[in-house]
Amino acid sequence: MSSRSRISLALRRARIAQPIRPQHLRPLSQIRWQSTASTEDSEGVAKGTTGTSKIVKFTSETYPEIKRDSRFAEITEEHVKHFKELLGKDSAVIDGVTKDATDDIEPFNGDWMRKYRGHTKLVLKPGSTEEVSKVLKYCNDNMLAVVPQGGNSGLVGGSVPVFDEIVINMSRMNQIRSFDEVSGTLVVDAGCILEVADGYLGERGHIFPLDLGAKGSCHIGGNVATNAGGLRLLRYGSLHGNVLGLEAVLPDGTIVDDLSKLRKNNTGYDLKQLFIGAEGTIGIITGVSIICPQRSNAINVAFFGLESYEKVQEAFKEAKGQLSEILSAFELMDSFSQDLVHNVTKNKRPLESEYPFYCLIETSGSNSEHDNEKLEKFLEYVMEKEIVLDGVVAQDETQVKALWGWREGIPECLGHWGGVYKYDLSIPINELYDLVEDTRKKITDAGLIGEDEARPVVGVVGYGHMGDSNLHLNVAVKRYDKKVEKELEPFVYEWVAKRNGSISAEHGLGLAKKNYIGYSRSGTMVALMKQIKNLYDPNGIMNPYKYI
Amino acid sequence: MSSRSRISLALRRARIAQPIRPQHLRPLSQIRWQSTASTEDSEGVAKGTTGTSKIVKFTSETYPEIKRDSRFAEITEEHVKHFKELLGKDSAVIDGVTKDATDDIEPFNGDWMRKYRGHTKLVLKPGSTEEVSKVLKYCNDNMLAVVPQGGNSGLVGGSVPVFDEIVINMSRMNQIRSFDEVSGTLVVDAGCILEVADGYLGERGHIFPLDLGAKGSCHIGGNVATNAGGLRLLRYGSLHGNVLGLEAVLPDGTIVDDLSKLRKNNTGYDLKQLFIGAEGTIGIITGVSIICPQRSNAINVAFFGLESYEKVQEAFKEAKGQLSEILSAFELMDSFSQDLVHNVTKNKRPLESEYPFYCLIETSGSNSEHDNEKLEKFLEYVMEKEIVLDGVVAQDETQVKALWGWREGIPECLGHWGGVYKYDLSIPINELYDLVEDTRKKITDAGLIGEDEARPVVGVVGYGHMGDSNLHLNVAVKRYDKKVEKELEPFVYEWVAKRNGSISAEHGLGLAKKNYIGYSRSGTMVALMKQIKNLYDPNGIMNPYKYI
Repeated sequence: MSSRSRISLALRRARIAQPIRPQHLRPLSQIRWQSTASTEDSEGVAKGTTGTSKIVKFTSETYPEIKRDSRFAEITEEHVKHFKELLGKDSAVIDGVTKDATDDIEPFNGDWMRKYRGHTKLVLKPGSTEEVSKVLKYCNDNMLAVVPQGGNSGLVGGSVPVFDEIVINMSRMNQIRSFDEVSGTLVVDAGCILEVADGYLGERGHIFPLDLGAKGSCHIGGNVATNAGGLRLLRYGSLHGNVLGLEAVLPDGTIVDDLSKLRKNNTGYDLKQLFIGAEGTIGIITGVSIICPQRSNAINVAFFGLESYEKVQEAFKEAKGQLSEILSAFELMDSFSQDLVHNVTKNKRPLESEYPFYCLIETSGSNSEHDNEKLEKFLEYVMEKEIVLDGVVAQDETQVKALWGWREGIPECLGHWGGVYKYDLSIPINELYDLVEDTRKKITDAGLIGEDEARPVVGVVGYGHMGDSNLHLNVAVKRYDKKVEKELEPFVYEWVAKRNGSISAEHGLGLAKKNYIGYSRSGTMVALMKQIKNLYDPNGIMNPYKYI
Repeated sequence: MSSRSRISLALRRARIAQPIRPQHLRPLSQIRWQSTASTEDSEGVAKGTTGTSKIVKFTSETYPEIKRDSRFAEITEEHVKHFKELLGKDSAVIDGVTKDATDDIEPFNGDWMRKYRGHTKLVLKPGSTEEVSKVLKYCNDNMLAVVPQGGNSGLVGGSVPVFDEIVINMSRMNQIRSFDEVSGTLVVDAGCILEVADGYLGERGHIFPLDLGAKGSCHIGGNVATNAGGLRLLRYGSLHGNVLGLEAVLPDGTIVDDLSKLRKNNTGYDLKQLFIGAEGTIGIITGVSIICPQRSNAINVAFFGLESYEKVQEAFKEAKGQLSEILSAFELMDSFSQDLVHNVTKNKRPLESEYPFYCLIETSGSNSEHDNEKLEKFLEYVMEKEIVLDGVVAQDETQVKALWGWREGIPECLGHWGGVYKYDLSIPINELYDLVEDTRKKITDAGLIGEDEARPVVGVVGYGHMGDSNLHLNVAVKRYDKKVEKELEPFVYEWVAKRNGSISAEHGLGLAKKNYIGYSRSGTMVALMKQIKNLYDPNGIMNPYKYI
């Protein structure tokens, strides 16, 4: 047996015992809120700044410097009556104004990380674009502030109210409108859940060009409003390229009817692009038209251990060169992230030994023989050159899911101890991991990391979409703590700004980063953005206190 | 020998005798203008509406309904003095105001199709973004209208003046600013020629994600300003996805410093998208940052003959399915287009027999063995199923170029007789070719087509980027003629509007389609666009009389 085939065999040995299923976000209804009397200690629930309390502080308490804008009207019974008449059915209005509906409303007030919590007393669920238009026009005429809300799976507090803004929840607009199999053009309601659309496409030989951990609960409208990046961007590009058309409603009720199904359409300013990544600050997206690629017959996933970040870069360069058109993901995970996943899930690790870095590579193509040959050649090369120290290749669908679980499971596992400070950054690839090391050192030097209860930090981990130069720096904590925050900010933002990176690669600004945009954008750019905001939302009712 | 290998051998037989080199647009300096006394009958030069005259009519004469906007100032000697001081060198100002410079200025007044001709007496060539800023601010303050001009290879009259607008030509800003081999990010001046950038990238294992016939003269800034589509869109997507950052100057001199090199950057409204496809109506693009894919090792080109448009659709569906990730072009050419190319070039046809339709397929991938195998399997399938009647595969680079010449040579060959009415349309794929047949019938019924000099039309041909549902409907004429125009318009636009297509897939609106945008966009959308125009260019000095 030649040395080449031995390496290959070793790589193909299946070592995965207990597949983890990628955990999607739990539906909001399953998350317990402070208003319930339960004493159960749910996993992944932040314990608030008070340490052991399960109470999530109001955003208005956490950030007392944010004041309610007095230009906005308070919601009255008359307003509620109007909305009830407008939306017809009872289920479309959750009314905490004329009666006590705290339990029903709380899930719409808080985010899934339990970091933000608003005071809204009214949730509206319009069932059509026309209803969205009428609701917004009324709000605009009456100076009622609103928060557009999709699956509420955001990480920056963008989709929940700060004060008493009305939540406009899009979950009732959840239909697939049309799909054309020849062109691959899908048209959906904004409230259609990503996984539902992807499943629908799967039955028709296509995939959605975006994939992310929250796919089981996030809405496509929300994905577009936040310009979500995710796992498939490396292969299929950004939503700015894939979204062919949008339907949206401006605060004054104007319906932006830009729902083109054409791949090419050069007839005037591409206004829909402004709504992609606007985080609901200039209008509400109600419909999306998007080009969807064909589903690949052959999917391969490999998982490696590497000795240094330098080797990770080498592996990435080789993967780009050798796997080229079939490379569909190149994900980075450091040992700290994998240790935490292991601690929480107790699953058997994919590799026998432990390494400082791990990578997950996915290929997808039309011919499994060709893809296997390319992948095997690549694996032999990186093993022989000692770029990679060990690796496994998934042998079936279950193992594919199991390997992905070690990557996709990170965000949920990190929440196990209480809370997570999450930073989503674009950094030039050669310096990308330096930030994790510098941050870990800073937190360690400050004496904030340790097992004893007095030290808030559990771990400082780095992972992310290497292929897009996109690092997720996460600091897992037992509780949210101002001392930790002070070490992290503005340190992280200054570090990124110095390298011309982005302080928000794919998660958006929301409330979390409103004050930090200056680290990634010049004053001129911010002024130009404010001009756009004022143009479309002169009353400022759309998702106030956030974004820019 | 099995039947399968016989088919395969037949296909691989090289039948191409005289390769045509794809003809790029001639540099402007080589095009002769009416002001020269030459009697030489250059190929590809429209003869004007007067029949045999070589004089290109002024746009203001062709469209007498367009009136000069009296708000704009007339250029004075004082203005010219200011610009000369501002731009320093003599070569940066072509001054037809204080002296006679007609010969020098004429190439900047007219388009390469010889359909449009302006009256400018001043051409400015700024050498830096700061100079562009100072020039624009001065023009804005003094109500001097301007036309941004790149390689002037546009097809809709967008890059030449109508009256005395100052031409701001970007050819002096032609440098490659930086390239990062790991991420593939290229940063260039707006005036960098597409082919120069692509050549530079080629030496570094990458390609520009856009390719089009005019690559030898068009500027990247112009490509972005017109959101050019071209030959690689099928594989690499649109500029809205690939452009990572822009530097642009607003009419008031503000420099929009949005030249991000990051693949992911969700920090505020994506303003750069407004400039992509704005055709110079809200500002001038001065720099472009763009993500460039790796160059493929293996390029294959095949050329087929097919008996009907139904078969073309079948072939496309099979190509998408079987060639999937390596398919990089699927181009359609009808027999009329190929006959005209043959008449002009006298080159030997790629196939022995003639067919109603031809397709060109290109694959590009990282492994030539794999790609050959996929292509051969595809070819065997489409031959056996009689989807395709005959075909050849290029055996070397020369043959690749020769086959592409039968597609890329169409626009230039069509101009051989005098002029071309060009329509660039997005149409649902199943109805795409119907328009060519309906138009040909209409022109024939009107008695306008024929060999005798009295009949202006030489041929009605259809070709284009099948993969993007993008049809180029071209009507080759001996002379531009109002009778032909009356048959074509608004017929073509109404036909497309009925099918929810686009009246401008990739060429833009310019002057040619300013009045027809209503066929593709609602009144609401046009009103929203005008709002953007007014926001950035309240004085209306940027490329007036055009776009929306």
